[in-house]
Amino acid sequence: MTISTFLLALIAIFVAAKLFGEIAERVGAPAVLGELIGGVVVGVSGLRLVDPHAETIHLLAQLGIVLLLFLIGLNTELSKLVAVWPAALIVAVAGVVLTFMGGWAVAHALHYPNIVALFLGGALTATSVGITARVLCDTGHLHDREAQIILGAAVVDDIIGVILLTLIGSVAGGGALDAIAIARTAAIAFGFVFFAIVFGSFLAPHLVRAIERIGMARGLFFASIIFALTLAWIAQRAGTAIIIGSFAAGLVLARTEKAEEIERQVHDVVHFFVPIFFVAVGAAIDVKSLNLVGVLLAAIAVVGKVAAGHLAPGRGLRRMVVGVGMIPRGEVSLIFAQIGFASGLLSAGLFSAIAVMVMITALITPLALRMLLPKGPALEREADLMMDAPMEDEPREAAR
Amino acid sequence: MTISTFLLALIAIFVAAKLFGEIAERVGAPAVLGELIGGVVVGVSGLRLVDPHAETIHLLAQLGIVLLLFLIGLNTELSKLVAVWPAALIVAVAGVVLTFMGGWAVAHALHYPNIVALFLGGALTATSVGITARVLCDTGHLHDREAQIILGAAVVDDIIGVILLTLIGSVAGGGALDAIAIARTAAIAFGFVFFAIVFGSFLAPHLVRAIERIGMARGLFFASIIFALTLAWIAQRAGTAIIIGSFAAGLVLARTEKAEEIERQVHDVVHFFVPIFFVAVGAAIDVKSLNLVGVLLAAIAVVGKVAAGHLAPGRGLRRMVVGVGMIPRGEVSLIFAQIGFASGLLSAGLFSAIAVMVMITALITPLALRMLLPKGPALEREADLMMDAPMEDEPREAAR
Repeated sequence: MTISTFLLALIAIFVAAKLFGEIAERVGAPAVLGELIGGVVVGVSGLRLVDPHAETIHLLAQLGIVLLLFLIGLNTELSKLVAVWPAALIVAVAGVVLTFMGGWAVAHALHYPNIVALFLGGALTATSVGITARVLCDTGHLHDREAQIILGAAVVDDIIGVILLTLIGSVAGGGALDAIAIARTAAIAFGFVFFAIVFGSFLAPHLVRAIERIGMARGLFFASIIFALTLAWIAQRAGTAIIIGSFAAGLVLARTEKAEEIERQVHDVVHFFVPIFFVAVGAAIDVKSLNLVGVLLAAIAVVGKVAAGHLAPGRGLRRMVVGVGMIPRGEVSLIFAQIGFASGLLSAGLFSAIAVMVMITALITPLALRMLLPKGPALEREADLMMDAPMEDEPREAAR
Repeated sequence: MTISTFLLALIAIFVAAKLFGEIAERVGAPAVLGELIGGVVVGVSGLRLVDPHAETIHLLAQLGIVLLLFLIGLNTELSKLVAVWPAALIVAVAGVVLTFMGGWAVAHALHYPNIVALFLGGALTATSVGITARVLCDTGHLHDREAQIILGAAVVDDIIGVILLTLIGSVAGGGALDAIAIARTAAIAFGFVFFAIVFGSFLAPHLVRAIERIGMARGLFFASIIFALTLAWIAQRAGTAIIIGSFAAGLVLARTEKAEEIERQVHDVVHFFVPIFFVAVGAAIDVKSLNLVGVLLAAIAVVGKVAAGHLAPGRGLRRMVVGVGMIPRGEVSLIFAQIGFASGLLSAGLFSAIAVMVMITALITPLALRMLLPKGPALEREADLMMDAPMEDEPREAAR
């Protein structure tokens, strides 16, 4: 990628994000849906100005979602998240089981061999929380109990997804099911989250105070970014999802005395990178690949997660919101598709079908969530987090 | 580059920039010198955590310098720049002629053939304004007359550098000197600057007002970034330097009623990317390549530009500041080295010598400038632009 292609891609990303995001808002749809559609327009199905598979665009998109989850972590109270853990666990496990079984059953009904059925089932399991998180931010519902359950379930979901990948990947590679390897993957993934939060909670206040004592130039800003990237990196090295790392970093820093100051400082940078992620997701959508199996998979993906949402315990809980919030699939599903395709187990048609399923869930979730969650009066800190608040009309001091 | 390598590189960049920047400040050296040395520590000569030649790091570094020049343009008054144009032109042309002749003479003294002499001369000509601009910002001297001359001369210099590249590149390719091609390159380069400023000045106020009327989310922020990237892209396509494009964008937006608002909004994002550039420059320095010819070239590079600075007309002008400010060499010199090396005209030793020259000029300029320019009481808008102002102690409102 030359500097010229890179500049043009960035221009296309920002123009598409703002133009289609604004149009979406005006017709009452969420801005993120506009950004996804804008991505389709400038991506592989449209003008081809943005190549989502180009290394640099892919890495910047990843950085965007890492930073978005960091900002969401900064806005999440750990105690509230811990309070809903039984519901989150039930929703996550039920969602994985139901969608896996659904995918497996469809594959068998279509007379595919068992190994293909495992892949299709696996590809349906893991929720990609970015789109939901973004809509919850934009509509000012991030502090709702349903949002906490979705975030908690998404963390568990990601961990289960990684375990399934290890499992099915080893089967695809001709290996046997190695119970010890699976247990180790699971222990590391859950251990990381536990360790990051416990150790981080101990470390973060000291870090924040040390930075303040040194009085370093832009110290708090860079220390926070470095902290988020470091936990993301450790998460990746530990074999779990990078966004769990940055989300944990946000959770931990949210408990320090400088939480609001940090949020205010990282805000602009996060919102520079966030549209890159959503436009890149849209840009990867190949509308020509639309096929019936994909639509069928999408239907199972939706029904499985919505059903799982309805299993969440809790009085007065809007279970439909929880279920719909868990619908989007993303990276993990596509990794399943890629491994299956690369190992020759999945046909090009089934590979496309999984991509179509990802695409449909990405596009319907914002619309469905917006219908369920009217844009209410946002809380002060949420207003600051909101992506569609014109900066000019909302001076930063209001959010302090 | 995997996401894991990318995250680690970003962590290394920010840690190195802040740690060594802070140390540099404490011992009275400019922060940017610390960032360059931090780059050496994490780069190819040190820990090898940051590969400056990796596509993504290279592109983000380029984006950093593009955005820095945009911010500097936003802080530059076009009328002040135009007022010093004769001095800027003299300094630029004299600097190019003196350093070219110096490099050419050294090559002949060392018995190299004439074509090699042309390359060495060419590699010494073009100033890379980033380091100087950064020191001028940090010390609050960006509005000084000397700073205006340096900025103006750097623009002219870059244009001449591109013309020389076309010229010598065509000779290296075995072609004849094509006067028409050279005239066209020159016309396009100068034409771009003229067109960007005249047309941009006409367009920008309408753009700013339209954005405000639409009331789009973060509209002014993204419109400004898009404007800067677009002019950078056009500059690149027109065959001139990308930083001239973003600098012109800044100059033009500085004349709109929203200049300070724009600066305030893009500030944090710019300062996220800027350290990537300076650490990447340091990371590319290979200390093992140090050789005597390189030191000799660096001496000529310094003497030629300092002498050119002393030719600037104007009463009470600190000509030494102008000359020293023109010392740093960068991208254009390395492109000369690469073309020469790739075409087999330059030996590995001479290629290294040019790299050493770039490295020495990069390291001595901040130190020399800091000795010449004591850190004075900064103006309000400059204080906001300064990189080493702790954000915590300086609420944004102060700069409005």
